[in-house]
Amino acid sequence: MTEAFDVVDLIRIKRDGGDLSTPEIDWLVDAYTRGVVGDEQMAAWAMAVFIRGMLPREIRDLTRAMIASGERLDFSSIAKPTVDKHSTGGVGDKITLPLAPLVAAFGVAVPQLSGRGLGHTGGTLDKLESIPGWRARLSNAEFLTQLGDIGAVISAAGTGLAPADGKLYALRDVTGTVECIPLIASSIMSKKIAEGTASLVLDVKYGSGAFLQDPARGRELAETMVGLGTDAGVGTVALLTNMHTPLGRAIGNANEVAESLAVLAGGGPADVVELTVALAREMLALAGQPDADVEAALRDGRAMDVWRRMIRAQDGDPDGALPVARESETIVAERDGVLVAQPALPYGIAAWRLGAGRARKDDPVVHAAGIDLHAKIGEPVRAGQPLLTMHTDEPARFARALEALEGAWAIADAADVAAGTVAVDDGGPLVLDRIA
Amino acid sequence: MTEAFDVVDLIRIKRDGGDLSTPEIDWLVDAYTRGVVGDEQMAAWAMAVFIRGMLPREIRDLTRAMIASGERLDFSSIAKPTVDKHSTGGVGDKITLPLAPLVAAFGVAVPQLSGRGLGHTGGTLDKLESIPGWRARLSNAEFLTQLGDIGAVISAAGTGLAPADGKLYALRDVTGTVECIPLIASSIMSKKIAEGTASLVLDVKYGSGAFLQDPARGRELAETMVGLGTDAGVGTVALLTNMHTPLGRAIGNANEVAESLAVLAGGGPADVVELTVALAREMLALAGQPDADVEAALRDGRAMDVWRRMIRAQDGDPDGALPVARESETIVAERDGVLVAQPALPYGIAAWRLGAGRARKDDPVVHAAGIDLHAKIGEPVRAGQPLLTMHTDEPARFARALEALEGAWAIADAADVAAGTVAVDDGGPLVLDRIA
Repeated sequence: MTEAFDVVDLIRIKRDGGDLSTPEIDWLVDAYTRGVVGDEQMAAWAMAVFIRGMLPREIRDLTRAMIASGERLDFSSIAKPTVDKHSTGGVGDKITLPLAPLVAAFGVAVPQLSGRGLGHTGGTLDKLESIPGWRARLSNAEFLTQLGDIGAVISAAGTGLAPADGKLYALRDVTGTVECIPLIASSIMSKKIAEGTASLVLDVKYGSGAFLQDPARGRELAETMVGLGTDAGVGTVALLTNMHTPLGRAIGNANEVAESLAVLAGGGPADVVELTVALAREMLALAGQPDADVEAALRDGRAMDVWRRMIRAQDGDPDGALPVARESETIVAERDGVLVAQPALPYGIAAWRLGAGRARKDDPVVHAAGIDLHAKIGEPVRAGQPLLTMHTDEPARFARALEALEGAWAIADAADVAAGTVAVDDGGPLVLDRIA
Repeated sequence: MTEAFDVVDLIRIKRDGGDLSTPEIDWLVDAYTRGVVGDEQMAAWAMAVFIRGMLPREIRDLTRAMIASGERLDFSSIAKPTVDKHSTGGVGDKITLPLAPLVAAFGVAVPQLSGRGLGHTGGTLDKLESIPGWRARLSNAEFLTQLGDIGAVISAAGTGLAPADGKLYALRDVTGTVECIPLIASSIMSKKIAEGTASLVLDVKYGSGAFLQDPARGRELAETMVGLGTDAGVGTVALLTNMHTPLGRAIGNANEVAESLAVLAGGGPADVVELTVALAREMLALAGQPDADVEAALRDGRAMDVWRRMIRAQDGDPDGALPVARESETIVAERDGVLVAQPALPYGIAAWRLGAGRARKDDPVVHAAGIDLHAKIGEPVRAGQPLLTMHTDEPARFARALEALEGAWAIADAADVAAGTVAVDDGGPLVLDRIA
């Protein structure tokens, strides 16, 4: 018996609504990393945390313990200010793709250690791997060189940062303990703090396509993470943003890259541009450029130039053809009117079922699979007009995707919408609040 | 995807306080038995059940599903009525040893499939293995022959009965999900119903040495189990009994056998005799003999005769010498007075640390290790009079046992006790209630 604590005692404390001390949390995370505490024990503890909650002090301790479980990166050799961005994830969320080169165009270093998608939310790396030749994995030296020279790097996070979080994250995914503010906040912030960024902008999403549906819960998560970042000396700002309907018109992988290129070329859907610009402003303000003219860098091609250098540095061909699906099927509007409902979740699930996402950690994704929206919430439609196109390599997948799309849109009479007797269910403004 | 349900969905339902349907519970238990549902998933579910509870219908479904996970025994070839007994466990609880032969002395078959101890509560099989030659494991044929001929059998439960319960029980032990009425009730009753007994008497304990401290929770457990038994066609009665102080004067293995022999010889501690007789009356009433003169069978040696036949049938020597510990240490009273406190738990832990119990499932036990109490709660003591003797083979164990015994007794002035200004903390009557 050389262990400082008995894991069953610690599980029971949390189970009964008590609080764990700092040494208890330190030991638990360390013992889990060492394998002395088993997955079944950590799963019971995580469920107890899910239901009973954690004190702010416990969340801080958990974050610190997960940071201490691995290595920390050091960006002090980079002359530029570093600003990272993290999104809690949503349907059609490709914002990192235009955002990182846009911010880097102002001489700021944007280290984006990203993940792969699981379930209905896509992964930034999966999207970028649609680009011929592009590779996600960089050595530490490659990462630092690219960060210093080009400013923008989007690459796979190594397993050295917060390994305890890596284990716990995978466990939560299979044990129904994902949607838990203390566990989400400590998971995200342990990796971001260990990464060594000077400042951080968080895109915390709420609504039907987000982990947390309720804006009040999204706000709580944002406040918790901003507190953790500030406490660790990382300048942290969060935007609370609407994930009630899909972001942009493309949901998938290759089509999201194409949409990102449209934004970098000065076009693209209004919501994707609005959110990219809002996040870029926050990042640049943290980097000491509160008055940067962000839109200009999209219009005049500076952001696109950084994108092309960033893709090339990781062996991708920025002019290479994106993959196209073997099969497509288009759904048309059944009547004239206005699109008054377009909830994000069914589109995320349908794109996943078409092959854009994975059910298990090691499944491959089909880069060309996904959904293009021809009409967005609040837009007028005419009977017979295309509403959406599904793309896949396996036509057998259409039926399951269509099942998921049951109830995924509603069309109302334009007169009723104009008169205000039918509301457009868009979930409100795209950016609901800013938490700093 | 040939599975009927997604385990994460089922965990989430229970996590959020919902109820699982009968097909959902059937699938969960079956999938766990097959290994499709992992230990970490079942642990998260068990913690959610611990905190959120289960409906009576869900507990019934869980019990039935665990029965269905394995084989069922059939006692229909036995001409005698069958009555089983189960205790929820406590410190010094050797009642099965005198009880089974006592009831069998009246022509009733008592099939006792017993377990081994884990932690501070001892196991019936561990105690009996103190007897030279005695073996716990019988073939089905041996079991049935002995049950028909002698009536009393105490043997190891095979792994064929309710294997899902076997897995879940081991998991709960390491994940802090033991003290949960729906899980305790379904665990006990699934094995007893699968075993095929016609009727069953439950000894449900409450107090400091029991799983459930509070009598109200003990009553809830008793009512839940009686409901499950009745529902399955097993005539079931429960006694709610006091485990606030140790039962009898012997806590260990060989010393508990010796104490049981004293009871079978017409003597023994009053509380052990009282509880043995009370349980025997209930068992005999269920077997159609409500007026049996139980005490007579202890006084006139009929119960002892059955004991001797039962031990011999399992290769034990009823006249063989019980093992004696290499080292003993006696603690004496520090003052004159009355023993007003003797909480069960510290004695259970101390006996365990002396070697009478095991910390891990496959550890051996030391049969001669344990504690003898020379004074029981409420008895007068004089300064220097022996209070207890500890037995072990390894003298190094005394110090850890003494640590556990910190606060394990209190002596008050006899005058204060007589005047009622100091109460004897005995937890009330031995048998608090009967639930049928």
